[in-house]
Amino acid sequence: MNLPADLGTPCALVDLDAVERNTLAMSERVARLGSRLRPHVKTHKTVEAAKLQVRGAFGGITVSTLAEARFFAQAGFRDITYAVPIAPARMREAIELGRSIDRLSLLVDSELALRALQICSAAQQVRTPVFLKVDCGNHRAGVDPTSLSARKLAAGLAASKHLDFRGVLAHAGHAYACRDRDEIARVAREEREVTVGFAKSLRAEGTRVDEVSIGSTPTLSVADDLTGITEVRPGNYVFFDAFQAAIGSCTLADAAFSVLTTVVGSYPDRHRLVVDAGALALSKDPGPRHVDADAGFGQLLSEPGELQAGLRLTALSQEHGHIEGGTGGDLSRFPVGTRLRVVANHSCLTAALFDRYLVVRGRELVGSWRPLRGW
Amino acid sequence: MNLPADLGTPCALVDLDAVERNTLAMSERVARLGSRLRPHVKTHKTVEAAKLQVRGAFGGITVSTLAEARFFAQAGFRDITYAVPIAPARMREAIELGRSIDRLSLLVDSELALRALQICSAAQQVRTPVFLKVDCGNHRAGVDPTSLSARKLAAGLAASKHLDFRGVLAHAGHAYACRDRDEIARVAREEREVTVGFAKSLRAEGTRVDEVSIGSTPTLSVADDLTGITEVRPGNYVFFDAFQAAIGSCTLADAAFSVLTTVVGSYPDRHRLVVDAGALALSKDPGPRHVDADAGFGQLLSEPGELQAGLRLTALSQEHGHIEGGTGGDLSRFPVGTRLRVVANHSCLTAALFDRYLVVRGRELVGSWRPLRGW
Repeated sequence: MNLPADLGTPCALVDLDAVERNTLAMSERVARLGSRLRPHVKTHKTVEAAKLQVRGAFGGITVSTLAEARFFAQAGFRDITYAVPIAPARMREAIELGRSIDRLSLLVDSELALRALQICSAAQQVRTPVFLKVDCGNHRAGVDPTSLSARKLAAGLAASKHLDFRGVLAHAGHAYACRDRDEIARVAREEREVTVGFAKSLRAEGTRVDEVSIGSTPTLSVADDLTGITEVRPGNYVFFDAFQAAIGSCTLADAAFSVLTTVVGSYPDRHRLVVDAGALALSKDPGPRHVDADAGFGQLLSEPGELQAGLRLTALSQEHGHIEGGTGGDLSRFPVGTRLRVVANHSCLTAALFDRYLVVRGRELVGSWRPLRGW
Repeated sequence: MNLPADLGTPCALVDLDAVERNTLAMSERVARLGSRLRPHVKTHKTVEAAKLQVRGAFGGITVSTLAEARFFAQAGFRDITYAVPIAPARMREAIELGRSIDRLSLLVDSELALRALQICSAAQQVRTPVFLKVDCGNHRAGVDPTSLSARKLAAGLAASKHLDFRGVLAHAGHAYACRDRDEIARVAREEREVTVGFAKSLRAEGTRVDEVSIGSTPTLSVADDLTGITEVRPGNYVFFDAFQAAIGSCTLADAAFSVLTTVVGSYPDRHRLVVDAGALALSKDPGPRHVDADAGFGQLLSEPGELQAGLRLTALSQEHGHIEGGTGGDLSRFPVGTRLRVVANHSCLTAALFDRYLVVRGRELVGSWRPLRGW
């Protein structure tokens, strides 16, 4: 696409055709595998993209902040899972927000949080829907599903008259350490097996477990078996990004989010360019260095979208992006004023840096979306 | 400080006492060295902090985006230098904005930008104030001051009837690669000598050079000689950060910006905590890894401000900060709900993630500042 010449750069571009393809493909894939899609909206934080995500699904969504929960509740979404362990100081606010919709499910993974949530729920005279967060191999948040304390916590949640125990929830964040689709497939199997196995063991002890929820974009892009999984929560697939392409979740052509930038310094003798998209327009996510040590801060495309394989975005200062062309290339093709597009490493972090996204179909600007910010 | 218990975390805290100390110290330092301070406002992007920066100075400021130029012009700042080479497509907008104040100086470092700026200035019938950007050793943007083309470009700028050639401007970005104050002092000498030497050589050829402008927070925190330098442009010193402390620009006690966060996951058996400040609250700036390979994503403090040397912020996902405690420490001291403060690696990038900063003096919340966003 060649966009209007007077767009102020840097600016964020959303390729609506790609978003529609990506969201349709995930909906179909999850339906085919017999599970329900509760898409995560944290990557884009817009009502427009969320509506595309729930097309053909049951309508529930996943959020990463209470601010998102509020924003999407106000936009008409009535079944929301807040998929980060909640801070006790924000439980009251969450419970109040939950009253305004059908269900706002929260996460806990500690006795302390369980007790705090019981107290808040009792005080507000509600039964709060709650998931037990399970560690399925990522080893950061979540209970160890092989531990006695995990089974005790689940029993405590299920027994509480102030809590509505929904089930177990895991996230295979370690899928991002994979190097290819085969490795992702192994993590996806582990994510499913650990979570389903834990639910089974709880049921065997008499605990009712309605929901078994997993999900990451890498694992859901590769998984071929969701037996026993009631809900999945991928989010990044709406936009994808250079990282997902590098590990095999998608191809670079699937990337629906890019940053349009302008060459403001051209130094062919030094084999360098400077563009006006720096760390504040791209984020400093280091990207898929485990599969490509030279990944830099994203993939560079021409404005119409052809990969510029000879260019590397090697460094970012606040408002400068530093591009190296290698000694073989001729950078005089990129004089000051040339526009390029960057598919950044991590679209969730890059999109969050913009107050609006320009939405394009082919070469045509068809709208703009305003993402939510803050917590 | 122990702040109100109901603050929603993550939130951004500005220690007003520290900002006042930092801004006063820099004003005094620059005055003592006989130069003029044109502080950079890009770190905080607030009118309130900019007003503290220009106390005791002549009132000029430096900005990193045209959006900042507009914002600060509207707030009454009338002498602004936009210290990034300007994209040709935005010259017209910049010139129009410049008409509304006393002076908006722009940067060029190429014949192409010079010609474009002449054409725009002629069309709008103004003489545009312009600096020649010089590479003083950073080897990214700027002309090579030893080159014939640099002297030709300066002569072209000075000869143009549509341009008001202000002088030469450099930025020692490579000071951030230093490991201690001695190394910074060497870069500071180089920054001064290269830039002053280039101005002298231009003057020797008959070119009038009024301004010789340099500046970075590391070099200005260490430099003991500004002979020949008419203006300096440090910015980060308002807040400082964990990076500046690690290389010796300041101490950690000088850091005026921090993020208040809450422990949402506590796993003493795994020697791990999870806090609710992730990449969207802290930025993924890798920090001073060249001086501290284990730097992580910032320094952790208790809520009242004591350094928690046993805790490392080792990884960030979108809304989770992952803390490791080492096998020796006892993390049961940090149950779910505990609040911690993070002095992030790079305050410029972290501050930009927030829509407001909570301003505190000691334990008291005394106001809130709203930073500008966008380009």
